[in-house]
Amino acid sequence: MAKALPLSPLAPKSFADLPAIDGVRLATAATGVKYRGRDDLLLCVLDKGSTIAGVLTKSKTCSAPVDLCRAHLRTGKVRAIIVNASNANAFTGKAGVRTVQATVKQACKVVGCEASEVYLASTGVIGEPLAPIPITSRLPDLNDTASGDAWMAAARAIMTTDTFPKLATATARLGGKTVTINGFAKGSGMIAPDMATMLGFVFTDAGLPRALMQKMLSDAADRSFNSITVDGDTSTSDTLLLCATGTSGIAPKGIRSIDDAALKSFRKALDAVLQDLAHQTVRDGEGASKFVSVKVTGAESDTAARHIGLAIANSPLVKTAITGEDANWGRIVMAVGKSGQAADRDKLKIRIGGMLVASKGSVHPGYDEQKLVPHMQGQQIDIGVDVGVGKGKATVWTCDLTHGYIDINGSYRS
Amino acid sequence: MAKALPLSPLAPKSFADLPAIDGVRLATAATGVKYRGRDDLLLCVLDKGSTIAGVLTKSKTCSAPVDLCRAHLRTGKVRAIIVNASNANAFTGKAGVRTVQATVKQACKVVGCEASEVYLASTGVIGEPLAPIPITSRLPDLNDTASGDAWMAAARAIMTTDTFPKLATATARLGGKTVTINGFAKGSGMIAPDMATMLGFVFTDAGLPRALMQKMLSDAADRSFNSITVDGDTSTSDTLLLCATGTSGIAPKGIRSIDDAALKSFRKALDAVLQDLAHQTVRDGEGASKFVSVKVTGAESDTAARHIGLAIANSPLVKTAITGEDANWGRIVMAVGKSGQAADRDKLKIRIGGMLVASKGSVHPGYDEQKLVPHMQGQQIDIGVDVGVGKGKATVWTCDLTHGYIDINGSYRS
Repeated sequence: MAKALPLSPLAPKSFADLPAIDGVRLATAATGVKYRGRDDLLLCVLDKGSTIAGVLTKSKTCSAPVDLCRAHLRTGKVRAIIVNASNANAFTGKAGVRTVQATVKQACKVVGCEASEVYLASTGVIGEPLAPIPITSRLPDLNDTASGDAWMAAARAIMTTDTFPKLATATARLGGKTVTINGFAKGSGMIAPDMATMLGFVFTDAGLPRALMQKMLSDAADRSFNSITVDGDTSTSDTLLLCATGTSGIAPKGIRSIDDAALKSFRKALDAVLQDLAHQTVRDGEGASKFVSVKVTGAESDTAARHIGLAIANSPLVKTAITGEDANWGRIVMAVGKSGQAADRDKLKIRIGGMLVASKGSVHPGYDEQKLVPHMQGQQIDIGVDVGVGKGKATVWTCDLTHGYIDINGSYRS
Repeated sequence: MAKALPLSPLAPKSFADLPAIDGVRLATAATGVKYRGRDDLLLCVLDKGSTIAGVLTKSKTCSAPVDLCRAHLRTGKVRAIIVNASNANAFTGKAGVRTVQATVKQACKVVGCEASEVYLASTGVIGEPLAPIPITSRLPDLNDTASGDAWMAAARAIMTTDTFPKLATATARLGGKTVTINGFAKGSGMIAPDMATMLGFVFTDAGLPRALMQKMLSDAADRSFNSITVDGDTSTSDTLLLCATGTSGIAPKGIRSIDDAALKSFRKALDAVLQDLAHQTVRDGEGASKFVSVKVTGAESDTAARHIGLAIANSPLVKTAITGEDANWGRIVMAVGKSGQAADRDKLKIRIGGMLVASKGSVHPGYDEQKLVPHMQGQQIDIGVDVGVGKGKATVWTCDLTHGYIDINGSYRS
């Protein structure tokens, strides 16, 4: 069993205080499957009429719960979400599917809903069978005790190698009134398959048509969870769900596009919640000692800019240079080159900590590495790259690659 | 200045002894640009009529010497190759191009050849200007002293973070007679931009038409240098050159395809030399403590198989599990999933050390992790994956990711 990890040095100083959202009830319990002395099971119950959108891992070897979510998202309705943080139920064959089916069946009975309104997420070790009983036996009690103020308990129950719970909240103006968006997440990367799968659950009391909600979520995910990386690995289980209860009574009508001005405030708040959770995930990256922001401009498209940013953020050589507090911009040039995206070597500009270090295909005249020392020694590293071929831009976030990462991942199971 | 690194624990017990190849002369010298007490400059002089083929980095930010090689390879003729191991002359703008031009000009004068017959390769730090004088001033002496038996000195002169020189030799039957293939290389990865660029130089006394030679080299490179990875990073300077002097008097005529039976022995020997050098490169991977072979079968195509193999070999989580001597096959499932290539999760088979650990989308019945402990504790780790969708196959090679990698790359320049 893994030892508890020390709190990340990049952890936030305080946690967000999430208000109740009418129509959302939460409860947690301990299954005892893996952990002792902590809850590792979460039930979220939503009022009738709640809608749901989701973004799931693109892994070709995704888990049984992800298969279930993908199927049920087609209906767009939700009454229950069940999350366990002991075992990923991934690569568990037919036994894994049976556990999913048994859990859904029990949830339908307990909550009183259709099977297609139940969603599951599992995180933990891959390839070990997960029995249904430790989960199904606890659902009746969880449903009885679920309440609107268990956000912190929920965020803690889904943690694995996370060293702190991740919560965020925001309000938005919609239809002339105020709605709330609450979210919590877990993950020490996008990423790590054993214990650091990214799971994110977001709830709002706005009423939103499913198609519009899916587009808003996919779009916001691209600028948040799809723009972070710890080690470039992709989990079998990454799951991000957005649920709308409509209990605020506010449900915008006649909106066909997510670019409609009526959605501006809501989308901004959704972006803020997702980016906040995504940043917290990077701040809890396995072994992280520095938070790194990579802003790419001048690319052929926003998508190209994101790929260049991820090539830089995923480069072990860039990450270890940052660990060593070395403003080694040659490695950034290398990473731009390996991204495969269009870039003009002779127009490339690189900024570190706002200082121009390279321009016109060479070191910038008068660049003084000594002036960058205080920035490199700080906890937040800012890299800016302009690749000189277009107007595409994107920002991605990552952390450094340290001895801590190797300690955590080289010794986790043993 | 970096400290000398300890010899890799995976270093070969002895070095290949390369015979002279008529028409190839080599000499080395110390420029003093970066290193003290060792040679870091190599001149190879080839007889008139020698032909050349090459495989160069696909980086969009490649170095000035790579640009030169790409242009000169169109002529297919070679008389001189100059390699320096002090500075990559990459991202050095117009000054870098001027240094290349001055070096070529001096080489033409010294060797007595056309500019288009001169090839350069530089490896070392990126973004620092490289003056021509320390190189050009030494070329006359190098040309005067060049000899046919300086292979070991040549292999040593091009080293950077390498902890041992990399040499290989083989003979082949061609046109009923025997020809020789000699090669040497440097690199602690494909890969690392600062100091671990892969450079490889291969020579034969066979006479080979350029087009055929290029196809044979590209094909063999795919199964050797393009099938290894240390950290997934791509250098600005990777260069692999194959030169044929024709001095053996053996030059096969009328062959149009590399699949012609007359080339079978030569291609086998070329594969052997390139794979030997590629494996030595992995064995000198920065911080490597284990040599890892990943054999993928059942893919849609050989190319798909190679991509899946590289996804596994590049995964920080797979690599750190191997470091921790943990047969964590769940991470292999994850890496197959993230490769993006077709794979049937429910037919996936995984073998470690020849033992079936997973089959039919789940752990293999009767798999006993304890039986794998001796294999995981060894220096050579064998992973086999069948993805169950076709007949494509490939083998890739890598090393583990250790504290040593972070020590080397987190503190190299400081």
